[in-house]
Amino acid sequence: MELGRLNHVGIAVPSVDGAIAFWRDIMGATCIHEAFDLREQGVRVCFVDTPNGQIELLEPLGDASPIASFLARNPRGGQHHLCFEVPDITEARDWFEMLGKRILGPTRVGAHGTPVFFVHPADMQGVLTEIMESPRG
Amino acid sequence: MELGRLNHVGIAVPSVDGAIAFWRDIMGATCIHEAFDLREQGVRVCFVDTPNGQIELLEPLGDASPIASFLARNPRGGQHHLCFEVPDITEARDWFEMLGKRILGPTRVGAHGTPVFFVHPADMQGVLTEIMESPRG
Repeated sequence: MELGRLNHVGIAVPSVDGAIAFWRDIMGATCIHEAFDLREQGVRVCFVDTPNGQIELLEPLGDASPIASFLARNPRGGQHHLCFEVPDITEARDWFEMLGKRILGPTRVGAHGTPVFFVHPADMQGVLTEIMESPRG
Repeated sequence: MELGRLNHVGIAVPSVDGAIAFWRDIMGATCIHEAFDLREQGVRVCFVDTPNGQIELLEPLGDASPIASFLARNPRGGQHHLCFEVPDITEARDWFEMLGKRILGPTRVGAHGTPVFFVHPADMQGVLTEIMESPRG
């Protein structure tokens, strides 16, 4: 496998609306996409563009959200995961499985509409890692 | 202020050598720079290129290193900070000071040889934020 683009940095936030104000008014983001709910993953999502990538703001939807437990430990929010692109999600999954890395659940459709999976941080030097098939075209 | 490039994601690691092997052999990084000591900041540093940015691996140099306390809480390592570029470090520092954000210490020369400062995570939605003047040319 060859290291692909860092598609986004996922940041857990108590409130997407509050985080949008922070990224717009403090950090000076000029391209903030429409927020939306990704119910299957238990999160409300908003992408903020940087000149070379994206920040993904993640607010929990409900107490069962994986973001809810993160926020219980880090009430202000914080860096949650890194997402790298691959050309072929099946090959990438086979690669990490062959290496004995623990993959968290099935491959599913991610926030950009392409298939993704997550690899356990304990097997990834403490970094929760999302692997995402690059959008076509 | 306008949001600049995400120059790098800083990742704390117990060992830069071990982390280099991980990024090369597991993640498939093909451009890994020479590691070096940044004694003033108490860290050993190694940059790993992604197609659109960099990962900064940070190993503590000594027990007084800011990375040492991070690793005491997260022994495997983990995401430590985000670094964004600005065109003018003095203007950026004035901006964050004007907003009442706590800046951690003086502006100093960072790992890329340009001036940087850090803003307290508690004032930045839980994200330790490095602000770095873009390299010239």
